[in-house]
Amino acid sequence: MNVAQRPTLYLAGPEVFLVNAAEIGRRKQRLCLAHGFEGLFPLDNDIIGLPTGTRIDQAIYKANLAMMERADAVIVNLTPFRGPGADVGSVFELGYMAGRGKPVFGYTNVAADLAARVARFDHVTFDEQSGYLRDSTGLMVEDFGNADNLMIDACLALQNHPLVVVDAPQDQLYEDLTGFEQCLRMAAAVLQAS
Amino acid sequence: MNVAQRPTLYLAGPEVFLVNAAEIGRRKQRLCLAHGFEGLFPLDNDIIGLPTGTRIDQAIYKANLAMMERADAVIVNLTPFRGPGADVGSVFELGYMAGRGKPVFGYTNVAADLAARVARFDHVTFDEQSGYLRDSTGLMVEDFGNADNLMIDACLALQNHPLVVVDAPQDQLYEDLTGFEQCLRMAAAVLQAS
Repeated sequence: MNVAQRPTLYLAGPEVFLVNAAEIGRRKQRLCLAHGFEGLFPLDNDIIGLPTGTRIDQAIYKANLAMMERADAVIVNLTPFRGPGADVGSVFELGYMAGRGKPVFGYTNVAADLAARVARFDHVTFDEQSGYLRDSTGLMVEDFGNADNLMIDACLALQNHPLVVVDAPQDQLYEDLTGFEQCLRMAAAVLQAS
Repeated sequence: MNVAQRPTLYLAGPEVFLVNAAEIGRRKQRLCLAHGFEGLFPLDNDIIGLPTGTRIDQAIYKANLAMMERADAVIVNLTPFRGPGADVGSVFELGYMAGRGKPVFGYTNVAADLAARVARFDHVTFDEQSGYLRDSTGLMVEDFGNADNLMIDACLALQNHPLVVVDAPQDQLYEDLTGFEQCLRMAAAVLQAS
């Protein structure tokens, strides 16, 4: 397979916010190559040479969108970020690619399910009247055994490559690539068939 | 304009997790009618008559997706949910509808920008070496003056109907519909033109 024929993967995840984001991007791209893919790593705050007056955030958005349009599929890091849920920027990209009809793959480096994740931040109780779990403000907590909101887990499951769940060490939360590699193997089965 | 000609709006937001979710859904749908729209309110845990063995979460996902396919546009409640960021289920739907090329509208009932939102949950400092704000774990905090991750704010802004920002009372965080009504007016200008 020559370079031009490699399927491309958009690599979404909150690791763009790490101090060593560029290094992790390179590690992910090397793993992509090893599995027969070209990896497209999103930029964040890293756009240069813009005309005066250009909004950097909107330029990054447009650059990320262009990468997603070019990509054949996406692998999203859905590890919890500043709370029990995934990074909303990454989830936007998951939804966008699903809306574009492209294969989506995802992993999380926290093994706890949503109810247990919420319970790390808030008091979760069983509401007998409704039969639902609720947080301390009365908001219902989904209890399907999913890692996150059902729109995320079901989207992946219904494409027949469910969320990959890894129990990564706390100090490797955004750097452990075990789940990412498992997504690469699933993506290879889908995109490199025949 | 007869009923059949009313444009339809998908009504995304974390209010589906409230005890009085159905009531808020009806309020939103009445406002839609008053502005010339039909409002489609997503189900959550409210699907009945499924064959034995059907996964409820996946049935809800499919029902929500069918509603989004039917809708001409989406209005998303992007009020922070269990942390500084928006509800990930709603953000997935924002991304999905953007990916489907449909108009997207959004509002938030918290007026603080992202840096101030994160500072409510964590210590945020300015990192002189990189020039970025960082949280206590070293993760960069976007500082564009946006309400949330740039993918959300820029998506809305680049469709020429930026995020509507409302400073709602704390006890009306998911029920204040001032921003929702402003989105309805913007949607009317886009979808009911000519």
